Amino acid sequence: MQIADLRSLSPSDLDRIMRRSAAAFDDVLPVVQRIMHGVQRGGDRAVRRYNKKFGGSAGHELRVTRAEIEAAYDKVDASVVAALQAAMRNIETFHRSEMTEEPPVHVGPGIEIRRLNRPIERVGLYVPGGRAAYPSSVLMMAVPARLAGCSRRVMCCPSDNEGNLPAAVLVAADVAGVTDIFKAGGAQAIAAMAYGTESIPRVYKIFGPGNRYVTAAKVLAAASGLCAIDMPAGPSEVLIIADESADARFVAADLICQAEHADDSACVMVTTSRPLAERVAQEVEHLTDGLPTRSRVATSLERYGILLIADSLDDAIALSNDYAPEHLQLMVGDPQAVLQKIVNAGSIFLGHYAPAAAGDYATGSNHVLPTGEYAKMYAPLSVDSFMRKVEAQTVTMEGLAAIRQTVGTLATVEGLPAHRQAVEVRFQSRGGRVVAAAKRG
Amino acid sequence: MQIADLRSLSPSDLDRIMRRSAAAFDDVLPVVQRIMHGVQRGGDRAVRRYNKKFGGSAGHELRVTRAEIEAAYDKVDASVVAALQAAMRNIETFHRSEMTEEPPVHVGPGIEIRRLNRPIERVGLYVPGGRAAYPSSVLMMAVPARLAGCSRRVMCCPSDNEGNLPAAVLVAADVAGVTDIFKAGGAQAIAAMAYGTESIPRVYKIFGPGNRYVTAAKVLAAASGLCAIDMPAGPSEVLIIADESADARFVAADLICQAEHADDSACVMVTTSRPLAERVAQEVEHLTDGLPTRSRVATSLERYGILLIADSLDDAIALSNDYAPEHLQLMVGDPQAVLQKIVNAGSIFLGHYAPAAAGDYATGSNHVLPTGEYAKMYAPLSVDSFMRKVEAQTVTMEGLAAIRQTVGTLATVEGLPAHRQAVEVRFQSRGGRVVAAAKRG
Repeated sequence: MQIADLRSLSPSDLDRIMRRSAAAFDDVLPVVQRIMHGVQRGGDRAVRRYNKKFGGSAGHELRVTRAEIEAAYDKVDASVVAALQAAMRNIETFHRSEMTEEPPVHVGPGIEIRRLNRPIERVGLYVPGGRAAYPSSVLMMAVPARLAGCSRRVMCCPSDNEGNLPAAVLVAADVAGVTDIFKAGGAQAIAAMAYGTESIPRVYKIFGPGNRYVTAAKVLAAASGLCAIDMPAGPSEVLIIADESADARFVAADLICQAEHADDSACVMVTTSRPLAERVAQEVEHLTDGLPTRSRVATSLERYGILLIADSLDDAIALSNDYAPEHLQLMVGDPQAVLQKIVNAGSIFLGHYAPAAAGDYATGSNHVLPTGEYAKMYAPLSVDSFMRKVEAQTVTMEGLAAIRQTVGTLATVEGLPAHRQAVEVRFQSRGGRVVAAAKRG
Repeated sequence: MQIADLRSLSPSDLDRIMRRSAAAFDDVLPVVQRIMHGVQRGGDRAVRRYNKKFGGSAGHELRVTRAEIEAAYDKVDASVVAALQAAMRNIETFHRSEMTEEPPVHVGPGIEIRRLNRPIERVGLYVPGGRAAYPSSVLMMAVPARLAGCSRRVMCCPSDNEGNLPAAVLVAADVAGVTDIFKAGGAQAIAAMAYGTESIPRVYKIFGPGNRYVTAAKVLAAASGLCAIDMPAGPSEVLIIADESADARFVAADLICQAEHADDSACVMVTTSRPLAERVAQEVEHLTDGLPTRSRVATSLERYGILLIADSLDDAIALSNDYAPEHLQLMVGDPQAVLQKIVNAGSIFLGHYAPAAAGDYATGSNHVLPTGEYAKMYAPLSVDSFMRKVEAQTVTMEGLAAIRQTVGTLATVEGLPAHRQAVEVRFQSRGGRVVAAAKRG
């Protein structure tokens, strides 16, 4: 891996590292638009046609049956089911804590406002197929959706050309309580959930990562007002802030771990210790050697990887906040002190025994995280993502009297006299009727 | 206003009411795209050119000076400043309650996860100009942005052709602590905040309502990954659920209040009482008569207004959940009981003395709300909208040991061996080094 001084890094190298893979999808928009119109008009038939065209099965039934789910359990090792259940327990424990109801706020005498948790009734979870199966991502979406109380939890995943979904994905969906599973992939799956078809229900929000076609379809669906989406997904990334207390072997293993996701993953270490950087570079060589995924690792590290040497921890932190990494590891003597200064990151891992891989699978935190600078504006997936906090306010006659003048003055300034009238009418005496009404208020 | 039985409503009437104004913006996309490219290339010069072209001033200075703000205070009545301050106090009281830090969650021995509140550092607030000035909307965005801790709170508002912003808007921005105010409107203002110009800083999330050009620009900016946006804005709407306990005059005043926003506002009452519906229709006539805004009111009520008679409160609630109103008023004998069954709504007003107008200006709740069915997926604006909850997890060697097998099994299923390695490397003994590291972990 390239080692460089942060201070003297060339503008072009800095730009390459900071930008990482931009993952543009403008060029696929016309194709995706055609697919979406096709599904809007043709429903299930169109979904089947596109499924077949893009490498899936031409099978008639889009919905996965209970028998198929049971068969999947037989194909998967018992240790995998146990691992999925163990991971789910931790995800539940952490995510359940997000569901506290807020107490009502007494704004003043006679004015009380609450925020109530209300589930998004129908949600769509997209699970990519292709090179690998990602049952862990199913848990990360389906568990918070169930905790939030979403009544329809619809999942779409592309099948192979014999009509099979990955067995581990089916088991994960079943363990996590997905209510409806469909064989549909790519832009046609997103379109089906956005518009609804004969088989696939329309949903109000679509979640999950995917290739450029999937991302383009999600963005188009959101822009057309059909549904909300979680956030645009991009290649995986890690930034590690390390000082001389870090173990070079641990750092190297964590950089490689992120780099194996794809050949455009981004892996950056910033350290105050030049000897550490040199040892990390050596360990990266050793630890990559035996891996079946070594070619992806090598490509990623060359394209978007770097070991940077900073003059101070504060310089390292400033770079990290500017980079806004999806995963941030604080492999330093006092991670809590560094944490206070971190503003932009998706998931932060503190200490030498907290590799991002632990959060990817098992600590219970959510691994659906903002990438590619999006950590400056978006949050990790959570139960919040599957519900809305609705305002509910109670105002009595006394409360309304207290704000009567404020409403009247501002309504007049804004040229909205009927807004003033809506308050005033409640204080106009009409043969005692107002007093009677007041008793009910 | 039209009175109709919910049970026997014609499909075309039901469709018209449920759809309300769709507010499509597809036809303006090409123009907006041109403006956005223009601002990306031309910066301030392009913003000034478009400002002039679309009815604003050709003035050189985009930034509002301190002297202009001071002058605005002189143009505004003292009662308006007092009303803005009173409204702001209530907004602060309610919104401050949203900022609680969550306690850490102990997932298991050695695994602790927290969610930390982190502000979105730079936010952009768009305030429309044109027919009216909306200082109240400035408060609804700028107060939560300040509470969240956003360090740059940038506001854009179109000026008149002499280069002036509405005085009340300037005063509201100053009272609420906006840090940077610019004279820029329409798509060019959104583009300026999305790309950044010489004067106008790039922001990470853009808030605020606007016309179709503004909405199209926000949607395009979000789709291109330049920034996040709050939500697409549409025409204002209210749905009132009323039983025989409601005062027809209050109901009528509240329907009219919503209808005066624009000629495509939507106003629906659903009641179990036919006599109430008939009295409301009469009162709407009386109360509209004297209003300067009566022409907009009449147009809105005719296009998207209706008084529906339902067989039961449950039928009324089902319609409301399907409609997903921006404002929902529960003018019934037992509003708390009805509230339990409400799933889809933006802001809910309980009782006979809680008109939506009170929340628009003064109760402290936020009036930037989802419209046009978006209440099924989006929440009211809140402090949450201006920050992210970042995950921070501490894992000790003991904690990592507890999940070691789960990570290994799932990484293997997903074909990601370096993920397994990242955990295993921490348990491989290499001449005692691991033990030493463990003590630091």
